[in-house]
Amino acid sequence: MDPSTLRKLLEQVRDSQLSPDEAITRLRHLPFEDLGFAKIDHHRPLRVGMPEVIYSEGKTPEQVAEIFARMAERSSNVLATRANQEKFEAVRARVAEAQFHPTPGCIVLHRNHEKRGHGLVGVVCAGTSDLPVAEEAAVTADIMGNEVEQLCDVGVAGLHRLLSQHDLLDRARVLIVCAGMEGALPSVVAGLVKAPVICVPTSVGYGASFGGLAALLGMLNSCSPNTAVVNIDNGFGAAYLASMINQL
Amino acid sequence: MDPSTLRKLLEQVRDSQLSPDEAITRLRHLPFEDLGFAKIDHHRPLRVGMPEVIYSEGKTPEQVAEIFARMAERSSNVLATRANQEKFEAVRARVAEAQFHPTPGCIVLHRNHEKRGHGLVGVVCAGTSDLPVAEEAAVTADIMGNEVEQLCDVGVAGLHRLLSQHDLLDRARVLIVCAGMEGALPSVVAGLVKAPVICVPTSVGYGASFGGLAALLGMLNSCSPNTAVVNIDNGFGAAYLASMINQL
Amino acid sequence: MDPSTLRKLLEQVRDSQLSPDEAITRLRHLPFEDLGFAKIDHHRPLRVGMPEVIYSEGKTPEQVAEIFARMAERSSNVLATRANQEKFEAVRARVAEAQFHPTPGCIVLHRNHEKRGHGLVGVVCAGTSDLPVAEEAAVTADIMGNEVEQLCDVGVAGLHRLLSQHDLLDRARVLIVCAGMEGALPSVVAGLVKAPVICVPTSVGYGASFGGLAALLGMLNSCSPNTAVVNIDNGFGAAYLASMINQL
Amino acid sequence: MDPSTLRKLLEQVRDSQLSPDEAITRLRHLPFEDLGFAKIDHHRPLRVGMPEVIYSEGKTPEQVAEIFARMAERSSNVLATRANQEKFEAVRARVAEAQFHPTPGCIVLHRNHEKRGHGLVGVVCAGTSDLPVAEEAAVTADIMGNEVEQLCDVGVAGLHRLLSQHDLLDRARVLIVCAGMEGALPSVVAGLVKAPVICVPTSVGYGASFGGLAALLGMLNSCSPNTAVVNIDNGFGAAYLASMINQL
Amino acid sequence: MDPSTLRKLLEQVRDSQLSPDEAITRLRHLPFEDLGFAKIDHHRPLRVGMPEVIYSEGKTPEQVAEIFARMAERSSNVLATRANQEKFEAVRARVAEAQFHPTPGCIVLHRNHEKRGHGLVGVVCAGTSDLPVAEEAAVTADIMGNEVEQLCDVGVAGLHRLLSQHDLLDRARVLIVCAGMEGALPSVVAGLVKAPVICVPTSVGYGASFGGLAALLGMLNSCSPNTAVVNIDNGFGAAYLASMINQL
Amino acid sequence: MDPSTLRKLLEQVRDSQLSPDEAITRLRHLPFEDLGFAKIDHHRPLRVGMPEVIYSEGKTPEQVAEIFARMAERSSNVLATRANQEKFEAVRARVAEAQFHPTPGCIVLHRNHEKRGHGLVGVVCAGTSDLPVAEEAAVTADIMGNEVEQLCDVGVAGLHRLLSQHDLLDRARVLIVCAGMEGALPSVVAGLVKAPVICVPTSVGYGASFGGLAALLGMLNSCSPNTAVVNIDNGFGAAYLASMINQL
Amino acid sequence: MDPSTLRKLLEQVRDSQLSPDEAITRLRHLPFEDLGFAKIDHHRPLRVGMPEVIYSEGKTPEQVAEIFARMAERSSNVLATRANQEKFEAVRARVAEAQFHPTPGCIVLHRNHEKRGHGLVGVVCAGTSDLPVAEEAAVTADIMGNEVEQLCDVGVAGLHRLLSQHDLLDRARVLIVCAGMEGALPSVVAGLVKAPVICVPTSVGYGASFGGLAALLGMLNSCSPNTAVVNIDNGFGAAYLASMINQL
Amino acid sequence: MDPSTLRKLLEQVRDSQLSPDEAITRLRHLPFEDLGFAKIDHHRPLRVGMPEVIYSEGKTPEQVAEIFARMAERSSNVLATRANQEKFEAVRARVAEAQFHPTPGCIVLHRNHEKRGHGLVGVVCAGTSDLPVAEEAAVTADIMGNEVEQLCDVGVAGLHRLLSQHDLLDRARVLIVCAGMEGALPSVVAGLVKAPVICVPTSVGYGASFGGLAALLGMLNSCSPNTAVVNIDNGFGAAYLASMINQL
Repeated sequence: MDPSTLRKLLEQVRDSQLSPDEAITRLRHLPFEDLGFAKIDHHRPLRVGMPEVIYSEGKTPEQVAEIFARMAERSSNVLATRANQEKFEAVRARVAEAQFHPTPGCIVLHRNHEKRGHGLVGVVCAGTSDLPVAEEAAVTADIMGNEVEQLCDVGVAGLHRLLSQHDLLDRARVLIVCAGMEGALPSVVAGLVKAPVICVPTSVGYGASFGGLAALLGMLNSCSPNTAVVNIDNGFGAAYLASMINQL
Repeated sequence: MDPSTLRKLLEQVRDSQLSPDEAITRLRHLPFEDLGFAKIDHHRPLRVGMPEVIYSEGKTPEQVAEIFARMAERSSNVLATRANQEKFEAVRARVAEAQFHPTPGCIVLHRNHEKRGHGLVGVVCAGTSDLPVAEEAAVTADIMGNEVEQLCDVGVAGLHRLLSQHDLLDRARVLIVCAGMEGALPSVVAGLVKAPVICVPTSVGYGASFGGLAALLGMLNSCSPNTAVVNIDNGFGAAYLASMINQL
Repeated sequence: MDPSTLRKLLEQVRDSQLSPDEAITRLRHLPFEDLGFAKIDHHRPLRVGMPEVIYSEGKTPEQVAEIFARMAERSSNVLATRANQEKFEAVRARVAEAQFHPTPGCIVLHRNHEKRGHGLVGVVCAGTSDLPVAEEAAVTADIMGNEVEQLCDVGVAGLHRLLSQHDLLDRARVLIVCAGMEGALPSVVAGLVKAPVICVPTSVGYGASFGGLAALLGMLNSCSPNTAVVNIDNGFGAAYLASMINQL
Repeated sequence: MDPSTLRKLLEQVRDSQLSPDEAITRLRHLPFEDLGFAKIDHHRPLRVGMPEVIYSEGKTPEQVAEIFARMAERSSNVLATRANQEKFEAVRARVAEAQFHPTPGCIVLHRNHEKRGHGLVGVVCAGTSDLPVAEEAAVTADIMGNEVEQLCDVGVAGLHRLLSQHDLLDRARVLIVCAGMEGALPSVVAGLVKAPVICVPTSVGYGASFGGLAALLGMLNSCSPNTAVVNIDNGFGAAYLASMINQL
Repeated sequence: MDPSTLRKLLEQVRDSQLSPDEAITRLRHLPFEDLGFAKIDHHRPLRVGMPEVIYSEGKTPEQVAEIFARMAERSSNVLATRANQEKFEAVRARVAEAQFHPTPGCIVLHRNHEKRGHGLVGVVCAGTSDLPVAEEAAVTADIMGNEVEQLCDVGVAGLHRLLSQHDLLDRARVLIVCAGMEGALPSVVAGLVKAPVICVPTSVGYGASFGGLAALLGMLNSCSPNTAVVNIDNGFGAAYLASMINQL
Repeated sequence: MDPSTLRKLLEQVRDSQLSPDEAITRLRHLPFEDLGFAKIDHHRPLRVGMPEVIYSEGKTPEQVAEIFARMAERSSNVLATRANQEKFEAVRARVAEAQFHPTPGCIVLHRNHEKRGHGLVGVVCAGTSDLPVAEEAAVTADIMGNEVEQLCDVGVAGLHRLLSQHDLLDRARVLIVCAGMEGALPSVVAGLVKAPVICVPTSVGYGASFGGLAALLGMLNSCSPNTAVVNIDNGFGAAYLASMINQL
Repeated sequence: MDPSTLRKLLEQVRDSQLSPDEAITRLRHLPFEDLGFAKIDHHRPLRVGMPEVIYSEGKTPEQVAEIFARMAERSSNVLATRANQEKFEAVRARVAEAQFHPTPGCIVLHRNHEKRGHGLVGVVCAGTSDLPVAEEAAVTADIMGNEVEQLCDVGVAGLHRLLSQHDLLDRARVLIVCAGMEGALPSVVAGLVKAPVICVPTSVGYGASFGGLAALLGMLNSCSPNTAVVNIDNGFGAAYLASMINQL
Repeated sequence: MDPSTLRKLLEQVRDSQLSPDEAITRLRHLPFEDLGFAKIDHHRPLRVGMPEVIYSEGKTPEQVAEIFARMAERSSNVLATRANQEKFEAVRARVAEAQFHPTPGCIVLHRNHEKRGHGLVGVVCAGTSDLPVAEEAAVTADIMGNEVEQLCDVGVAGLHRLLSQHDLLDRARVLIVCAGMEGALPSVVAGLVKAPVICVPTSVGYGASFGGLAALLGMLNSCSPNTAVVNIDNGFGAAYLASMINQL
């Protein structure tokens, strides 16, 4: 029920062609969500600074390129996650400005650089193998309008490396901490700061890491209460949530 | 937004105290679901013949009795599952007609015996230890308006017992099959009939039954395609679904 | 049927009180397994409108083609699931009328379009990645003689998309709902309708989806009781069961 | 190395009894963390408005009372989680002002009601069985200086109940959503709002809920990206994190 | 047996070429399920020397006693497993000859001591905590007519204890080996003998034994091929199978 | 310590070059297992009719061929499991008589056809996908000197196919039953016979079969006590154990 | 075969009553382990300073007391783990010197205080709830002859507490680190020292700690390589291994 | 805070430009870890004889070569684990002295052969399939300055092979025992020696070995207390820990 349909109905009431009771009956059977509900939804992504996002896994290069190109027409910023060089080539043939971050496999069209977040989003990772996940988070937070700084290779087996970066940890308004294997880094980081810490378990490891399960369980059981956890390897989701928090 | 509020608004439109556009704006901010949506929901349980149901686990006898009594005022049939003798005593003090099925722990108030289902619901179980689950299903199906027959102790280790009851299996319009341990019975039953078979894994067993997990996995992997599975020990849910099917 | 009953019957034959044909008829209704059991079984697939089905995984193109061709000689409708383009080529070389649905990987020979189901089978899926499973269900339900409608991309993160399709949900006599990741869609759908809802968890997701386990557990624990669950990615099984229900 | 030791060393430098280089060498071997690091930590809880917290499980009533009483001397607000009536009696004998919330088992001493959070913390739960967890979250958020509102019994099987509360969802600056069984509620809620949503899986359920595992996996796989998850039944942790966010 | 064969047979009866008794005999050997199937089944337990068995868990003392007493009327040997002192008292009040083995919780009525097994059944266990399971096996094997010897406390951490009993291992015709914790004993024993070895994982252990799962997996992965495994703590099943083998 | 070393020592004692006490000291430090223990082991495989066996997985074609050739020099029968065509070519180049069973991937050199087993080993499987495992069992049982018969495609969803083969089931002295998916076949078979039944779960299935886990758990929880279970897909182990039993 | 039997045999050889070949034959059939092997075993516990140990779980007070008393006659030090006050009373009635450590539930008789370890065994735990496990380790290490120091409540959420104890960590020759929940402490500690670190996951935690599984997986995946892990809550085993290392 | 900054501060104190109290205040806010802490860390690997180590998995040949070459400039010994022939070629082009161990995939530069361990490190494995893991351990222990001996193919199914090597087991100061499948070998070995035993579960096996989980659980539940466990396939970690122990 678009506004014009509704207006027509109300005009019939005004013109006494329809009694209020008849109008009630008709309204009762109209799809409720057309009364503005859907519109909110369509506008919401734009209001919160979220670019359109394409999850590329399981899509062909042509499909990714087609969707990306159509989105680029109506949105300043577009992000495609979990892509590769081949998919990027297909996109670039359609959208020349698009750029590729090979480590996380992100294709970005970043034309609107307005800062929507009020502070710094810090992205910390335990080892270099966690970089694909950490950079997916960093790229996402960046395109969503946040100031972002990364801190790498500060695993808990060499605490001094982490402690020497205390300053960055203190400056961040929201922290994203990525770690595989035993996933202990977020607990340690969260004990050093008062910022909210979003934990991203990564599938880095072997044997009893069970594809990230060990890190996931570790983070869920963190003894530091200013933490919460997203899915394994979900750098995108962590950055999305961090952006929502940073806009508060 | 109850109908009277809506009528008032429409009357203002009719009386030109409110322009159609102003009315649109107001309607847009009214909670949509009050335009009849909720009413459908309130009526739905009655239309489908579902009595009010109380899940008694974790409630005190007083709470169960209080809820049961209030429901008995507006509903002919009331069912409380996962109850015990003590909770039944509390209910009976309030609702003298209530009756108790000790094996499944069900308290029932069954005043409307109208048959809503079009055929027979057969409830089959592998062993006597599965009876609490099978009877929860039977009691539920009965109070929801189905003709119900039970068949017990027909485990797959002694096929002849099952095969000798082929007649009942053939007469049932919907079958509920409960089994613990390896959970093989539904596959065998479903291979003998064309009726839909709802599988209920039970927590009966020990060791590697892992609280019903073995039976659950067995049923999900059934090689008989006319089957689907509900949660472990969920006799109530199986009977609810069977009733929906039997009303078709 | 104990020996004495049998002897009495045979004595009546000997004494010509019973003709051999009458004796056959009586024996035929004696303990099921006696005579016609196998025959009933052979006829059953035809009676319930089930085409012959080939599970192609793990078979060579030649094997699939050979089986398909032989089945096509005695059955109007033939379905091969979990196939691919190469296997389809092999089949088409033998059965020119066969057609291929690439998304679910189904090869179909659909010559008998008689409608056996009494109503609409609705196939709903949460996201485009669930389409292979949803289409396996749709193709199967179609070839088994049901009217089928599909509804895609109505995940719970954007409820308005689902709610705006309330009409289709209401019209369906049986619903098949496919979802990966957290598998929440069936609970929401089942809360909106009174039709039986068959839930199909899909292996769509990553990390803690554990190949569909998260969706499976979610569906088994659904708070909507008019649901039951089939194996992960088992679109075929869901449609088979839906057909059995829709023939009631 | 306490300040007096350090002062002595520096006085020796001032008095030229120690050269700067010798002092460097000595400082290098002093325990670093005595240079003020610990002090920051002691002050941190107070600065962020966090009351002292006692996890009562596994402690005797006497131990809980003793710790509570000592904390009450130096802190305006004290919280003991996972307690019971007996432990509360022991506390009240020492701290007369202490109060008890029986549903979540929280003992609180709430003397400083300063609001530190900048907005509303909404605590939503799916069913009445989730109330102990939801109220642990609400009590914690309250004593940490947040405005709190609760919303109960809005499970996804009856969407209209949730949708009719859209207003509260919109007003909340941070949302905590508790759900057991299939844990679908947070996905649905998060799709309706732009606030960060902290998900708390509860151990409510039976059978294949596996003590909250089903809800946990569901929430980790949520298709709504503005969510993160804490440990099963960890209402306290969710509220602590919500408070940190609400102070931003 | 197709109808024409049957008709021919019946015509022979009618024509008195075949007496009713001869016809019965022929029918008896026609497809198994025809006539005597159930009878065979009824006689089978007696023929293989299996006493009637009652699984007492989940039954009241009165139920166990009632079933035991009725069985004692038609069977020389009766066995009730998983019982306790209270259930035994109830049984003894009905069947004075019954005896109780408190360690495994077995009630036995052992009147027929005929040896049916052709050799020795050896029951080996790793530690004294495994004794309840080992003795359930020993009592079962004994009442089923086997010569039984037990060997206890020969865990793999002290190999010499096991090796010094090589003689018993060599004499056994079938071996039952019970072990909890890491479940390594059956692999070692099976490497020393040529007899079939039936492995019984026990729930003895703590922590990562996960209720016997560690032992179960260990035994399933045994590098000794003359082994097979029964359910956790299933001493009864192991002894039943051993008896079947020992009667060969 | 070979016999000649021991003889020398004893001759020194006899010749009084060594006192008994000195001899004791020396013997005490000799490796005990050289006193015949190892010899027993070397002879054991031959005595029990077990051919030498090579597990080919993870070995290069050259390695398999080299080991096979060397074994063929001292053993009449040689078996290599888990091989493929390429490895077979390498073997045949060295041992011209070797033959290949492509379905299970077994290379056999079968020169000694002496029957060591006293009866028939029946190998039953539920579906054609289980054939690789069933044939690994059949080939192994054959080369170990057993009469073997196979029975395929008798899954529990079509009981009549199984029941019509009752005769074979009755004739077998030992039964090996292979099944994937829900693994229900062994329970049903074991309920029909008195022979020992060795269950082989297969990894056939998808989704919640979890690589054979569902079948494995189903078989461990079998309600038929004359069963025991080997590792998933372990046709070889089942046949080895069946051979040991069949030699009794 | 005790030495005197062997001597007799050798004397017969010396006296030519037995030829060397006859002696070989006899020796070959003697139980090998009597040639000194067993004696080594009996002496080993004493040599390595290990007291006799009784695992009390599942034993009655009388049984624990009886075993304890008999051990006290031949061993200076006796340790009973997993006991309680009632079992201690039973022991003290027999062995007046015995003492009880209520936190870990250890009964000790500690008469020989000889130091066998060459350095300090440090026992570190994350929180006070880990104390039962940490003290089981400390008591065991103490009675096995090690100097022991404990360090408690140094969880990774408050690093400064741990870092301020750097001195103790540096002085320890072997470290035992106990932690529940996410089990991150051992990784952090092991990164600060060069001593071997034995990790003990504890069952402390709730929800997704799954009885210590989270901590166990975390420790197995530690990024600090100077670590190894024992079973959940196995303070005794950790201390036993630490003692073996400390005696090197 | 580098030494020059610190010196400047101290010179100001010496010159009385800064009072000791002012200096304390400044020092308190300097990053603690610059006071020598990091330096200890840089020196520590060298002091404990640990070569630089590169985990090659997930790195390109170029990356491995670049890191290896740079490390070779400042360290006598360099180790790259989990490499392959291609990565080795890239390294050799840069560092001619580098050598390759193909079985474990280790690239080593071994120029300093100083023995740092005080005794023998024994590396034992159950079967030839465990060799990659065992050799990773052996290569690591060797380059870290230990005398190393390997013992292969001594699985528990043929105990005599293990027992005949008792001498090596006795000579080892530390033992590393690798085993897949049921992982029983470490328990048996540890029962024969007093040396500490480090257990390495390997992913060797199939079916219910679940990628090494069965062996891992087996080892964690070992009944031999002188054992601890590292991650599945973690030969490197076991050897690192063994080296730390062997330097004591």
